[in-house]
Amino acid sequence: MSLSVDLNSDMGEGFGAYRMGDDAAMLSIVSSTSIACGLHAGDPEIMAQTFSLAKEKGVAVGAHPGFPDLWGFGRRNIPFSAGEIERLVAYQIGAAQALATYAGHPITHVKAHGALGNLTQQDESVAQAVNNAIKAVDPKLVCLTIALGHQERLAREMGLSCRSEIFADRAYTDEGFLVHRSKPGAVIHDAAAAAERVARMVKNGAIETITGRSIVTPIDSICVHSDTPSAVGIAAKVRAGLEGAGITIRNFLH
Amino acid sequence: MSLSVDLNSDMGEGFGAYRMGDDAAMLSIVSSTSIACGLHAGDPEIMAQTFSLAKEKGVAVGAHPGFPDLWGFGRRNIPFSAGEIERLVAYQIGAAQALATYAGHPITHVKAHGALGNLTQQDESVAQAVNNAIKAVDPKLVCLTIALGHQERLAREMGLSCRSEIFADRAYTDEGFLVHRSKPGAVIHDAAAAAERVARMVKNGAIETITGRSIVTPIDSICVHSDTPSAVGIAAKVRAGLEGAGITIRNFLH
Amino acid sequence: MSLSVDLNSDMGEGFGAYRMGDDAAMLSIVSSTSIACGLHAGDPEIMAQTFSLAKEKGVAVGAHPGFPDLWGFGRRNIPFSAGEIERLVAYQIGAAQALATYAGHPITHVKAHGALGNLTQQDESVAQAVNNAIKAVDPKLVCLTIALGHQERLAREMGLSCRSEIFADRAYTDEGFLVHRSKPGAVIHDAAAAAERVARMVKNGAIETITGRSIVTPIDSICVHSDTPSAVGIAAKVRAGLEGAGITIRNFLH
Amino acid sequence: MSLSVDLNSDMGEGFGAYRMGDDAAMLSIVSSTSIACGLHAGDPEIMAQTFSLAKEKGVAVGAHPGFPDLWGFGRRNIPFSAGEIERLVAYQIGAAQALATYAGHPITHVKAHGALGNLTQQDESVAQAVNNAIKAVDPKLVCLTIALGHQERLAREMGLSCRSEIFADRAYTDEGFLVHRSKPGAVIHDAAAAAERVARMVKNGAIETITGRSIVTPIDSICVHSDTPSAVGIAAKVRAGLEGAGITIRNFLH
Repeated sequence: MSLSVDLNSDMGEGFGAYRMGDDAAMLSIVSSTSIACGLHAGDPEIMAQTFSLAKEKGVAVGAHPGFPDLWGFGRRNIPFSAGEIERLVAYQIGAAQALATYAGHPITHVKAHGALGNLTQQDESVAQAVNNAIKAVDPKLVCLTIALGHQERLAREMGLSCRSEIFADRAYTDEGFLVHRSKPGAVIHDAAAAAERVARMVKNGAIETITGRSIVTPIDSICVHSDTPSAVGIAAKVRAGLEGAGITIRNFLH
Repeated sequence: MSLSVDLNSDMGEGFGAYRMGDDAAMLSIVSSTSIACGLHAGDPEIMAQTFSLAKEKGVAVGAHPGFPDLWGFGRRNIPFSAGEIERLVAYQIGAAQALATYAGHPITHVKAHGALGNLTQQDESVAQAVNNAIKAVDPKLVCLTIALGHQERLAREMGLSCRSEIFADRAYTDEGFLVHRSKPGAVIHDAAAAAERVARMVKNGAIETITGRSIVTPIDSICVHSDTPSAVGIAAKVRAGLEGAGITIRNFLH
Repeated sequence: MSLSVDLNSDMGEGFGAYRMGDDAAMLSIVSSTSIACGLHAGDPEIMAQTFSLAKEKGVAVGAHPGFPDLWGFGRRNIPFSAGEIERLVAYQIGAAQALATYAGHPITHVKAHGALGNLTQQDESVAQAVNNAIKAVDPKLVCLTIALGHQERLAREMGLSCRSEIFADRAYTDEGFLVHRSKPGAVIHDAAAAAERVARMVKNGAIETITGRSIVTPIDSICVHSDTPSAVGIAAKVRAGLEGAGITIRNFLH
Repeated sequence: MSLSVDLNSDMGEGFGAYRMGDDAAMLSIVSSTSIACGLHAGDPEIMAQTFSLAKEKGVAVGAHPGFPDLWGFGRRNIPFSAGEIERLVAYQIGAAQALATYAGHPITHVKAHGALGNLTQQDESVAQAVNNAIKAVDPKLVCLTIALGHQERLAREMGLSCRSEIFADRAYTDEGFLVHRSKPGAVIHDAAAAAERVARMVKNGAIETITGRSIVTPIDSICVHSDTPSAVGIAAKVRAGLEGAGITIRNFLH
């Protein structure tokens, strides 16, 4: 029986005349994508186009809600209460559901974006808020969560379907957090090395930490970035590395 | 068998710290309400609160999509193509569906707001775009349309469920359009007179024009404004006038 | 020689169709006003109208820059670096200068709004950033600052002209900070008591703390709120109380 | 005595994390630039950075006000009255003045952007509104206008300083309007041909129309685009073509 893993990337992150990343190229590489919902990036045109393109390429789609912060691209912690986050996320899931349905390619997962995503790993009340929104709007949607975070554990406790992602190019601490970008070794710039490391982690079913330890945890998806000039090249190498190691790239729903 | 008609008003039109109208008072008077979806007014907090309050008061709810124009409160024609309007409306229906479901009170209709609503009466391609969005996202949703406009006719041709509204306080031309606000007699300021006229129109199944003619047409709902200081008083008088004439106020779904 | 003090209030805080406070009534009571600059509230129409009305009423005007956060009305800490705050404040001062000049009533001071204002009292780098923006754009503008905060001290060190305000209805800690709104006694709801206290503080040239101590400090202006239903009544009583105590209400430039 | 002309391009058109055009490269080619003011593009960070970079490169700067329409990048006619346009433009001039002063490189001109710029050529009331804003805020600022349009004539009548631009890559009708982009020959894609044509027009002091006629008119500046992938290459060729024809590139203030 063959080993498989999902490869995911965030897309639809332009706004109006602005573009971010090469979604068409990335959609030929990944097996699932999370689409910005108009509050930190994206607009209805871009959403519908990206859902359509993903359908054409056979890539599974999800909502990618974030803070309402176009200025900061959803990368800043905007002070919202947990209750407000529930409503913000519900709003964005609904908008994504409608445009994905409109495009003939309904969403199957939800993944929190940027600062909101980071908070789901660090702040239990935010993780719960995102899960509550998913459960209230459509409990059949899969929570795509950061491995080892609060959201993963809480989603399982709530009976939500959950898949966990690791980052192809980011080092992990022994506690399972991402090494802060300001620290040496935080980002793995060598795509070949990243691909090898990721293949090992999938095969071992464990995250490798920066000190060389292993943390056994479900790894359902590999996240590759889409918003840097080298993103397409790196994603292609990660995919090739995984396939070269005998791992099939397949959406996590299968 | 008793005659009945729906009484509707637009709500949830604040934004952040800003308030518009007295939704709590209006919800004690009307039988259905259309809720702003965050692009010309409204935000996720206000949407969820208004859906909850409507549930509590037993008032049916719908999405009230408009142009993305908070500055102009959705009252200006923003140049969007018909295709772009489809996506804009789909986005807003989805957001409203999600927050209404979150609040335990799913939406049952869609009504276009302000300049977008006026365009559905005047411009066939816009009417078609709004209907296309409804059909694509959820064809079970009722189109609440302006009586005698393009959207009503097109909705019926497409097999969508359609209900038609008239305005309690606005005069009609012989062609069935609203008399422009700049013309004398365009707005009926005497609530008692408005109530009497509306009761007559419901009983006769016909719109009375400013010249005294009648245009026979389905009248399913009476629209009362919510965003002026005198709105609550006028709405209450219209309701009392209808009830005094033996007409039951009841949502158009029944 | 008579004692005088400035009475100030924030205005122009609507947006588009939204209104906040009764600026016309408040402008008949105060001697200076700070006008929102379009990022947390206000738009060019409201700005120009409020500057014109202030001119008509003989009220001195200033820019009231805040965080770009219409959703949160400028009351939330949005994560910006000190450098970014400099540019944000410079932008808003310039916009206010232009519209005030357009209205024939140039601005003479700058006062930070809401969360940004609170940060100038608590965070030295933010206080410095606001002062840097004023100095770079127009060093003749007066810094209207919260008494006893970082901004007041730093402005004096930089050679900027500075005037300090106290709040008519807020209690002070022994450290000179505002008692947090969640604490008992934080807000003085009795307008007559507030007026009496304020008159005493102006006469004594000292802030009274919640424990009854005095902190000697320049008091150039009394801030009264404009955004609550009772604001006009309270402001009128504060003014009457000050005048009854023999204190003239006069802008701080005189 | 040598012939000279200004070469100008619009810059600072990113927003937050979004980038538009290669401003650093363009600033090595042009002699003046107009900077977006935050309503259709640009934000205080981008504005300050672009003013600083222009200072470093010795390029004169102006404000580039547009409609408040980030979604449409200022390219759509948003319905504002002439009076509202005055206030919108005044606001943006002030914001640009402040950030340019902050960056140590004050603005010396104002040029309307996109749909607003096009309206100044077609609609006399809009041209007057933009001129009124300039006159009210700072009458020493130069109006950089589209050659042969209303704004140029009205500016001269009002006593404002005016400079007129032609487009390097756009064909003109016999009436002096731009040939609509949908028409054949509207855009000159061959940079060498564009450069040659522009040099001829500057030497002749006359616009060449698509039918080969000449319209004598002041030509103070050549506008080159900055927001397409080929923009830098085209601008460099236009500059080289002008210099090869013995025309010095120099800001219009000299």
